[in-house]
Amino acid sequence: MSSFGRIFRISTFGESHCPGVGVVVDGVPPRMLLSAADIQQQLDRRRPGGNKLGTERNEADQVQILSGIENGQTLGTPIGMLVNNKDQRPGDYGSMNQIPRPSHADYTYQQKYGIHASSGGGRSSARETIGRVAAGAIAEKFLLEKYGIEIIAWVSSVGDFDTDSVDMEIITRDDVDANEIRCPDAQAAEKMTSEIVAAREAKDSVGGVVSCVCRNLPAGLGEPVFDRLEAKLAHAMMSLPATKGFEIGSGFSGARMRGSVHNDPFIKKGDTLGTTTNNSGGVQGGISNGESVYFRVAFKPPATIGQAQQTVDYAGNSTTLEAKGRHDPCVVPRAIPIVETMTALVLADLVMLQKIRE
Amino acid sequence: MSSFGRIFRISTFGESHCPGVGVVVDGVPPRMLLSAADIQQQLDRRRPGGNKLGTERNEADQVQILSGIENGQTLGTPIGMLVNNKDQRPGDYGSMNQIPRPSHADYTYQQKYGIHASSGGGRSSARETIGRVAAGAIAEKFLLEKYGIEIIAWVSSVGDFDTDSVDMEIITRDDVDANEIRCPDAQAAEKMTSEIVAAREAKDSVGGVVSCVCRNLPAGLGEPVFDRLEAKLAHAMMSLPATKGFEIGSGFSGARMRGSVHNDPFIKKGDTLGTTTNNSGGVQGGISNGESVYFRVAFKPPATIGQAQQTVDYAGNSTTLEAKGRHDPCVVPRAIPIVETMTALVLADLVMLQKIRE
Amino acid sequence: MSSFGRIFRISTFGESHCPGVGVVVDGVPPRMLLSAADIQQQLDRRRPGGNKLGTERNEADQVQILSGIENGQTLGTPIGMLVNNKDQRPGDYGSMNQIPRPSHADYTYQQKYGIHASSGGGRSSARETIGRVAAGAIAEKFLLEKYGIEIIAWVSSVGDFDTDSVDMEIITRDDVDANEIRCPDAQAAEKMTSEIVAAREAKDSVGGVVSCVCRNLPAGLGEPVFDRLEAKLAHAMMSLPATKGFEIGSGFSGARMRGSVHNDPFIKKGDTLGTTTNNSGGVQGGISNGESVYFRVAFKPPATIGQAQQTVDYAGNSTTLEAKGRHDPCVVPRAIPIVETMTALVLADLVMLQKIRE
Amino acid sequence: MSSFGRIFRISTFGESHCPGVGVVVDGVPPRMLLSAADIQQQLDRRRPGGNKLGTERNEADQVQILSGIENGQTLGTPIGMLVNNKDQRPGDYGSMNQIPRPSHADYTYQQKYGIHASSGGGRSSARETIGRVAAGAIAEKFLLEKYGIEIIAWVSSVGDFDTDSVDMEIITRDDVDANEIRCPDAQAAEKMTSEIVAAREAKDSVGGVVSCVCRNLPAGLGEPVFDRLEAKLAHAMMSLPATKGFEIGSGFSGARMRGSVHNDPFIKKGDTLGTTTNNSGGVQGGISNGESVYFRVAFKPPATIGQAQQTVDYAGNSTTLEAKGRHDPCVVPRAIPIVETMTALVLADLVMLQKIRE
Repeated sequence: MSSFGRIFRISTFGESHCPGVGVVVDGVPPRMLLSAADIQQQLDRRRPGGNKLGTERNEADQVQILSGIENGQTLGTPIGMLVNNKDQRPGDYGSMNQIPRPSHADYTYQQKYGIHASSGGGRSSARETIGRVAAGAIAEKFLLEKYGIEIIAWVSSVGDFDTDSVDMEIITRDDVDANEIRCPDAQAAEKMTSEIVAAREAKDSVGGVVSCVCRNLPAGLGEPVFDRLEAKLAHAMMSLPATKGFEIGSGFSGARMRGSVHNDPFIKKGDTLGTTTNNSGGVQGGISNGESVYFRVAFKPPATIGQAQQTVDYAGNSTTLEAKGRHDPCVVPRAIPIVETMTALVLADLVMLQKIRE
Repeated sequence: MSSFGRIFRISTFGESHCPGVGVVVDGVPPRMLLSAADIQQQLDRRRPGGNKLGTERNEADQVQILSGIENGQTLGTPIGMLVNNKDQRPGDYGSMNQIPRPSHADYTYQQKYGIHASSGGGRSSARETIGRVAAGAIAEKFLLEKYGIEIIAWVSSVGDFDTDSVDMEIITRDDVDANEIRCPDAQAAEKMTSEIVAAREAKDSVGGVVSCVCRNLPAGLGEPVFDRLEAKLAHAMMSLPATKGFEIGSGFSGARMRGSVHNDPFIKKGDTLGTTTNNSGGVQGGISNGESVYFRVAFKPPATIGQAQQTVDYAGNSTTLEAKGRHDPCVVPRAIPIVETMTALVLADLVMLQKIRE
Repeated sequence: MSSFGRIFRISTFGESHCPGVGVVVDGVPPRMLLSAADIQQQLDRRRPGGNKLGTERNEADQVQILSGIENGQTLGTPIGMLVNNKDQRPGDYGSMNQIPRPSHADYTYQQKYGIHASSGGGRSSARETIGRVAAGAIAEKFLLEKYGIEIIAWVSSVGDFDTDSVDMEIITRDDVDANEIRCPDAQAAEKMTSEIVAAREAKDSVGGVVSCVCRNLPAGLGEPVFDRLEAKLAHAMMSLPATKGFEIGSGFSGARMRGSVHNDPFIKKGDTLGTTTNNSGGVQGGISNGESVYFRVAFKPPATIGQAQQTVDYAGNSTTLEAKGRHDPCVVPRAIPIVETMTALVLADLVMLQKIRE
Repeated sequence: MSSFGRIFRISTFGESHCPGVGVVVDGVPPRMLLSAADIQQQLDRRRPGGNKLGTERNEADQVQILSGIENGQTLGTPIGMLVNNKDQRPGDYGSMNQIPRPSHADYTYQQKYGIHASSGGGRSSARETIGRVAAGAIAEKFLLEKYGIEIIAWVSSVGDFDTDSVDMEIITRDDVDANEIRCPDAQAAEKMTSEIVAAREAKDSVGGVVSCVCRNLPAGLGEPVFDRLEAKLAHAMMSLPATKGFEIGSGFSGARMRGSVHNDPFIKKGDTLGTTTNNSGGVQGGISNGESVYFRVAFKPPATIGQAQQTVDYAGNSTTLEAKGRHDPCVVPRAIPIVETMTALVLADLVMLQKIRE
């Protein structure tokens, strides 16, 4: 339910307007250097900036480490982390209580629980991901320091504007963060930005795709048969708000190929084997093969839009809904650290599971 | 690892050439009428037929129920099921032991475990899915009898040949099984069949896409935040051999849309609410909304092909590999009951979790 | 690791001297009235009082609810709770860092993690149980309101002083709290109190036994075969600091009996069956039978004593250890709400699991 | 439910009179030499012999390994094992179907599931433990070969007859198996045997206690806070049929002690620390300290006795019940390998969890 992972295991809590959101991270290795700053940097990347693309809500999102660390070192015990919600009042959302927002979670939460948070999306809000990102920052640090594993996500499409010129073997986070859209292809980024601005001016929203690569992954990660690496990644990505699709390696285009083209022949690479192509996306039989793992995640356009929408209220009466306040017209730039975080959580868990066999 | 589900929980065992493959199903409701015939019918749909599309191995795959049933009724205790492997000898595979098959799991299993089954794919073999299908048949029966839930999968593309004329609100399994390719669009089916035959004649293989719909699902299924309905479905599908992608509702095409188009406005439907469109794929905020849930799964072309492939052996020496024997040139027709099975396993588990709140 | 329960599931965090201790409670039913006061009352019972029996540390232990509640009602989402640690400084414990305290967790944590909290027992400290008690208070409220289930623990022995005159079918928490020792047999309580005072005056500590009864439990709780009711209770109790034994019903004395004496014959009780005796302790085959469940938990004497102890430091050098500061000479009076809490957590989980079958 | 363990994880299936009982063992390390004979030897120790103490049912209990092994080596994949039930007919039990046997699981299973196996105890039968013992034999082999860990259980009391002269640091399984009662103290064994024979002649049954020691356990095993070593052991033991109590180290007698007596002072032992006494039972703060772990398990007298018992049928009508056929008058001699098995399952899991931290 609100926990994820088997050994490196997180449990998140918090709605959009309750006192705070946070996470308990279990299974963090002991004697790891860790400070709030290590966590804050990913939270800051996740935070809605004051830029022209995102929402303008001011959320400082300062993390507080509650436990599990002493003198800058992890103890091996659970790390509790908390981010206070600055604005705990319902604010602009009050009028929406009689009308379930189309394609939002209001109606389904009400059907599931017989109650739903009066405002702001409650648990389905993007604020829930704060706990994940805080936990993921620890996982990332562990993976990088112990294994040299690098996880880098970027925006590969917004609306109909794509990039296909990103070299995933050399891309860095600095490249990604070079522009607000977080697409390291400057030309494509410009078009994407225009598309987002256009959507916002039309009081509308727009979808997009996030791509992600994991480099320096050792071979052998992934647990047959139900916890294959791609199954865990798919689970992780599709647990994020607004995701509609996941593909790894050749993905849906691989379904159109012949085997003779799709197969990745082996070659000798140093002391081990590698492959000449990587349609597999670094995974064979659910287990990493030592090549880079890469995948793509589809995000739908945000459901909350300023345009008038014809819909019905909970009682079934026809009505019109216009969302007030500022809303994010496109989630993919902010989704970058969240996709990285979920990737790190999956990999940290699988690395630890594989350690048992060493 | 080899278990799936929280309450309706299965644990599978078995490789391609060991004495048997099977499953233990825990959490089956008591006092349900159940016989081997209920299970055999899905196993038969999964079995490689003697038809021109599949492999020609003769696998009777008769299920034996070992426990959990008395006088034709479930006891509420675990149901053990076993299918004997008729041919336990390595057979045609022996020569492959020095050469990891490209895009197959030989190399990664060897890297993970330091050993791999000497033949036939071992645990990554499609035979592993027998245990899943046996378990899924129970889940399906439970869902249909208690909730009227129908799960129907079909082949929606093979190679470059698609169908877009299937009405998912009325399609039946009989429609699907009307032809060997299991595409209920006869014209598309013909082209798909030709493509598979062509691939086989070229000693090659070809990929495809399976679509699936779940009808009559109650609203409220899916567990925020990590076990959203779409996350569990994605996990389930991506745990199947040869899958490369998953999308629900609008999927990747939804990432190209504006919110004003993508949003599904509510309308009154009988005593409850429904939506006028269904880009959401029946899921909002990770929870079913009462509309049909539908999704698509991409399968890559099978890795084992008769064509000569340039590759290296485990020691890194260049070599050529030609798979002998008969191999399935396309998995999607046989994947139909397996996709249905994994869907049923996910839904049975979520239905039971939701029952706690009633 | 730091999570307990399958459906009603808690994850605790916090050491003795970190910023705070707390818990995330997942699986709480929605639409339940709940306030901080509901939780505080058990925390207050758990808190070391200023009385002559306990330690004199001043720990206010005010709980803060972080999430999962709106307008006094549960949302069905995780409830995060936090209790700040007032004194985060190592305090009196500093000198113990070179010497592992005999029969304490210093040495084993160091062996396990290669590091241990510099003071106060860290995660093995009784302060960790604050998160449990906060969660348990919710479980208790749920069990009482929905099923009328009552859970009452009391001190049944301290050192060599026992009581055997407690009527577990009518005892109340008020009876238990009537004296500081929490033994509802006033005469025995007096002797127990004297024993604790004597131990303290000798700079020593003393062990004891807590008994507990659960009344109004429906028949059918407990999951064969590994999660039998008594197995879950034993697990829960033996996860508490300082516990050395658990017995249910006839317990160890039952091992001395003949079956003809031990068996509990059935009789008609109202519309259902009951038993004339209750050596089973309300459980048969791991499942509740509708009679009261009762069990006993042995607590060893606290390891931290003021007397000089001959021991060695981490390097193996002989030394003498005298604990400074105030230490609890006997834990059983304060263990009462903790035993109740763990019982409630077990029962809430089993009640929910059984609900699936209704 | 029917699974136990986190990494080294078993799932058992089977009732007393269904086609077979068995287990799926997940998480077994790859490349371990393993044959059916390794498993059969513990199954044979568990099997009711034709001796004067046990029942006379002839159950060959030959294990069949279904999967996970090739050429005598484990593959790292799940090991399925099956033991056929020779006698699948209800046999002597038929008459008991209208009358719930006192202190047996008939009534509670009926209350829980609304149905119960028509004969022989179903899932609560001792036959369910066959799957556990088969799995435990693998765990034991792993622990012994990799860590030198020895697990030895023996009968320490039957009825009122105890032994206190067993030296747990040197005892062997051969010592234990030297007599049928499995008490390595020959004089006590004789008295225990007489007690069992007397009970049987009186058509009665008698309880007993099993003691168990684990030697050569490394320090550091056990997971704070909920999965402490003693909590997992207690859970495991109390999940066995007929158990009523568990105590570790000083146990209930420790609750009578002063801390100055109970504490185990540290001394230097070779390169590490040990303790001069072992009241802790090898566990401090839930984590093994390198000393021998020992514990005791109380078993009640078997519920099925030949004596006439006054009770009621399911409808509440008074009746008399006399069990026909041969029934085991005391379970403790046969419980020896079962206690060892559950211990091995707990330790194998904890050893693997600790490996993650190495």
